[in-house]
Amino acid sequence: MTTLATPTICHGDTRIVAPIAARLQSRPIVIQDVGPQLDCGRYPVKREVGDEMEVGATIFREGHDKLTAVALYREKSASAWREVPLELVNAGLDRWRGAFPLDVNTTYVFTVEAWTDVYASWCSELEKKVADGQQVAVELQEGRALLADAATRATGEDKTRLNEILTRFDAATDPRRIEWALDSTTRLLMARWPDRALAVRYDRELEVVVDRIEARYAAWYEMFHRSQGRVPGKSATFADCEERLPEIRAMGFDVIYFVPIHPIGRIHRKGPDNTLVAKPGDPGSPYAIGSEEGGHKAVHPDLGTLDEFRRFVRACHMQGMEVALDFAIQCAPDHPWVKEHPEWFIFRPDGTIKYAENPPKKYQDIVNLNFYGPHQEALWNELLSVVLFWVEQGVKIFRVDNPHTKPVPFWEWMIGEVRARDPEVIFLAEAFTRPPVMKMLAKVGFQQSYTYFTWRNFKHELIDYLTELTQSDAKEFMRPNFFVNTPDINPPYLQTGGRPAHQIRLVLAATLSSVYGIYNGFELCEATPIPGKEEFLHSEKYEYKVWDWDRPGNIKDFITKINAIRRENPALHELENLRFYPSDDDNILFYGKMSKDRANMVFFAVNVDPFDPHVAELKFPLEEMGMKAGDTFQVEELLTGRRHLWRSGTQGVRLDPEVNPVEIYRIGAWEKVDYRNPCY
Amino acid sequence: MTTLATPTICHGDTRIVAPIAARLQSRPIVIQDVGPQLDCGRYPVKREVGDEMEVGATIFREGHDKLTAVALYREKSASAWREVPLELVNAGLDRWRGAFPLDVNTTYVFTVEAWTDVYASWCSELEKKVADGQQVAVELQEGRALLADAATRATGEDKTRLNEILTRFDAATDPRRIEWALDSTTRLLMARWPDRALAVRYDRELEVVVDRIEARYAAWYEMFHRSQGRVPGKSATFADCEERLPEIRAMGFDVIYFVPIHPIGRIHRKGPDNTLVAKPGDPGSPYAIGSEEGGHKAVHPDLGTLDEFRRFVRACHMQGMEVALDFAIQCAPDHPWVKEHPEWFIFRPDGTIKYAENPPKKYQDIVNLNFYGPHQEALWNELLSVVLFWVEQGVKIFRVDNPHTKPVPFWEWMIGEVRARDPEVIFLAEAFTRPPVMKMLAKVGFQQSYTYFTWRNFKHELIDYLTELTQSDAKEFMRPNFFVNTPDINPPYLQTGGRPAHQIRLVLAATLSSVYGIYNGFELCEATPIPGKEEFLHSEKYEYKVWDWDRPGNIKDFITKINAIRRENPALHELENLRFYPSDDDNILFYGKMSKDRANMVFFAVNVDPFDPHVAELKFPLEEMGMKAGDTFQVEELLTGRRHLWRSGTQGVRLDPEVNPVEIYRIGAWEKVDYRNPCY
Repeated sequence: MTTLATPTICHGDTRIVAPIAARLQSRPIVIQDVGPQLDCGRYPVKREVGDEMEVGATIFREGHDKLTAVALYREKSASAWREVPLELVNAGLDRWRGAFPLDVNTTYVFTVEAWTDVYASWCSELEKKVADGQQVAVELQEGRALLADAATRATGEDKTRLNEILTRFDAATDPRRIEWALDSTTRLLMARWPDRALAVRYDRELEVVVDRIEARYAAWYEMFHRSQGRVPGKSATFADCEERLPEIRAMGFDVIYFVPIHPIGRIHRKGPDNTLVAKPGDPGSPYAIGSEEGGHKAVHPDLGTLDEFRRFVRACHMQGMEVALDFAIQCAPDHPWVKEHPEWFIFRPDGTIKYAENPPKKYQDIVNLNFYGPHQEALWNELLSVVLFWVEQGVKIFRVDNPHTKPVPFWEWMIGEVRARDPEVIFLAEAFTRPPVMKMLAKVGFQQSYTYFTWRNFKHELIDYLTELTQSDAKEFMRPNFFVNTPDINPPYLQTGGRPAHQIRLVLAATLSSVYGIYNGFELCEATPIPGKEEFLHSEKYEYKVWDWDRPGNIKDFITKINAIRRENPALHELENLRFYPSDDDNILFYGKMSKDRANMVFFAVNVDPFDPHVAELKFPLEEMGMKAGDTFQVEELLTGRRHLWRSGTQGVRLDPEVNPVEIYRIGAWEKVDYRNPCY
Repeated sequence: MTTLATPTICHGDTRIVAPIAARLQSRPIVIQDVGPQLDCGRYPVKREVGDEMEVGATIFREGHDKLTAVALYREKSASAWREVPLELVNAGLDRWRGAFPLDVNTTYVFTVEAWTDVYASWCSELEKKVADGQQVAVELQEGRALLADAATRATGEDKTRLNEILTRFDAATDPRRIEWALDSTTRLLMARWPDRALAVRYDRELEVVVDRIEARYAAWYEMFHRSQGRVPGKSATFADCEERLPEIRAMGFDVIYFVPIHPIGRIHRKGPDNTLVAKPGDPGSPYAIGSEEGGHKAVHPDLGTLDEFRRFVRACHMQGMEVALDFAIQCAPDHPWVKEHPEWFIFRPDGTIKYAENPPKKYQDIVNLNFYGPHQEALWNELLSVVLFWVEQGVKIFRVDNPHTKPVPFWEWMIGEVRARDPEVIFLAEAFTRPPVMKMLAKVGFQQSYTYFTWRNFKHELIDYLTELTQSDAKEFMRPNFFVNTPDINPPYLQTGGRPAHQIRLVLAATLSSVYGIYNGFELCEATPIPGKEEFLHSEKYEYKVWDWDRPGNIKDFITKINAIRRENPALHELENLRFYPSDDDNILFYGKMSKDRANMVFFAVNVDPFDPHVAELKFPLEEMGMKAGDTFQVEELLTGRRHLWRSGTQGVRLDPEVNPVEIYRIGAWEKVDYRNPCY
């Protein structure tokens, strides 16, 4: 047998010499499929303060050696990494998982590192050989070398303890040495002092944007400010709006979203029902922004002063609500920018300014900005300054009008700049367009997105769409804000379905997603259309309006109840926990949400047909609920307060749109009752 | 209305100024999900010479402007790009697709580029306005500017023609100008001269490794060389092996794969049935490579000389076959490297060399190389030189023993180095290990992989596994070489199922995958095990053996037929075209393959139960077959030659393992017969 002068033990030495390594994609330890990640880590995933960031990775190397892996993480602005262990959760697929806490409203960076656990590998082999009755004297020499190496690396008390172990190890007999080596304290110490110079780090750093909780959980009330007064033919003021706050708060809303509050252009102003010519006294569309009175940083004089707006913002805060503003990047032809910065607009060969059009349609009351060209930096900075101006007035939420008609890179830049200054700011993208564009806007920064929800009415449409939103990659970056209607969208379902339709859509919006909104008038079941169109008749977009907020047939009590149920049930503050369950009728949708610890479980049976009663058998997911067939459980129907004792996962329900279009069942884990227990 | 001195038209100018662009991930035109790609383009996908490379991409920008997109491609060694157009195949998802030809056995690079088609966008708007009866005088001025711009960029005849168009345009009246502008010749010319300075290129270059067709389509015969003679107790020679070639070629095999042909170690040589001690005259396992007579570049003297090996290789080529060698990186303790390069091995504290072990199992006849450490470059280069040595002898295929116990980066490096010198060389990975490791070996270069096929016997196992191999990402990089058995794997299914089991497994291997192999003796239905084990009794791995290659009960005729069917049906030369179809019996597997043009369609009904007959109703996929319900089609059962006229997609079958364990139906498109045609 050949021998070598200097014995080498190189279990863990997996270095590859530089000239070879430079040419390779792979490393001695393979770390791949680290997730969640989007587009190869190019865009961050999103979470909210208080979440745990679960990190998964596939990690392996050749042979049988054991590995150790950690997730490294830090706030993006910090330089020092912290780490949490990853656990091997699926040995057959080399899949590891761990989690770190997200405590701060900021951006975190994370990655993964792994190394060969030389000592654990050695222990494992030793144990097998000892169990097999093999001689292990040489193995113990190898193990001693590993202990000595670690003692060299260790510091402080650990160094002392490792050296003590070495001393005892040397003084002991082999059987005792085996015990010392395999002792749990020894292993723990050894795990603390690996040779991290041999660690392999994943070659990408991934990001997670952590927003405040309101990005995920809130109820929005879209308010057409000038219609909140009591005098017909006249604009309401911020003070009138303020008067409505207690009532809106009582209904359970968290956000008051204002359509644009700026001066409205006079040139080519639109008349009632979007007619081309406004008569004197017609107020015009608030989306035709800017006039002599000012542009995007001004408030419409009819509504009040900037001071009065700030007062309104404070009033909202006092009520526990906040204000969202509309950010619509377009100008009336008489917007001050047109005079001050003609270079920001497009002019035609005949010297006229190019107004907005989508041929053959023309929008003469609006001109669009040119986001490109040599003046783009000045323009982009001005737009940024508009947002920051309103942030200074206390506004932390912006609903962005038609972001998909502006460059994607502009949004990435702008939201990034705002977030760097104030991470509390939330942008909602009103992009009703093709899925890849909507998703990209969310990826580059929008914290919330409008969705196709408004047009998903049937059971299977809802299941398909919600499954995509909550179970696909989309859940990592796109928070769907479910609006039941908007000033521009008066869906046929609501036009025809009356009060039950409004109740049904409210429950769906408020419980399928965790963030949702209604547009004022919805609580009154107002859905009178321009015949054959999806638009409101006599829309307040183009004329003054006064509402009776308590008119008969309203569903304010119902909304109040639903928002209270949302608030009281933590499971409904989440999005991804939505699951659909079997119901044997095509009109009855059955779904539920559970908190992670199952302390809160809420199920919904919704008749999506607003016209006729339907019956269904619902199958509750007993196993997911932590129950066995035959368990008795107590159920509370939250709209009626009725309680049930159920012994079967299969339950029949009859939902009559006029009586109970929806039933909501809460099963509290604490309410599991064992009636077979004679001491009960 | 405000005017501006210099009119600007900036439809297509989507440049973002450098200081902003530097901070952004996104570009003015978004190009994403370019595929196929593996791990963010880190590893190449695989194709074969003669394939088309289909490229897909999601491409969009804000607003309504039209885009043009191309795939750029080149051989990796070339610098100039060629390009093919991408077509918008799904407007709602902004999905584009195109294809370029792969004519050469080399590596190609490809990427995607897109730009705004300013002229097409302008034409589209013009058409809508004209149709709406709008005035377009100003639009025509804008269009003229676009034409003039293009004329500036154009060269040669196109420049002349564009200038001619401009002259005529200027001389004409508006209605005639509209015609000129929208004329197809004008559009074609304009499409040829876009401002490519404004194009956005995808930021990754992706690679596709194009192998020769044999990487995908071949039938392998694993030959234990020393058992090919006629004298008991004595090794056969290369000359004996050569004598068997006509018979093997007649059965339809393409590759003769030899277990290691090198000198066998004497120290700790294993005896019959893997016993620890060899008696004098025991030949030892060919996997314990190296002795006084030489190492990995030597041939075992009992088999012949290197010259005689080369003669064998030539003989194979003459028969239209080629030779695959075993590349097993391990040494007998008396391998010359142990003396010459002790630094390549691991020595223990007691000065002994570390032999292979998987505790508590010991493999004393084998010592492993240490792939890391300061001497790794010399070792890796020596191993590379071993492969190149055999390439020089005419060997272009290597079956690699246990690659998963060697570093992944080593394989990436070695296969890369070999391929750079000779792209015809094919490596087959014998990695029976966890899926991520198997897949990574394929990603870093192995052209073929052993699989779990040998242990997938039941219908649903087969469907699940084959669906993964042929329909998931795996199809992009992993070519499954389906071996029915190996010297180490004598599956219980074959041990117990007799002749029908051998026929069934042969058909499955040969037709589910496009590349497959048998180990000699399979054609004789030899499957006598060491009782209770998956190993062969009296395995020729450890002793001399002589076979009667025509012994009763053999299935050589059946194999010949199946290989002929493979050869004659181009659909069976492909892997990804495998599809499973409904059969209502759990023992009867029904699947098919079609060529892209449907000129060749072959279906298989296989009774996977080797013991009992079963009946099933098969549902042929009429629509995929290009037929309508009620069409009459002619079917040939390829094993019996029987012909059928079928008028229904649903057909009953009874498969008796002793009679017809398998039926194979060919439906030629040319055989569609319309008997309702009275002229037929």
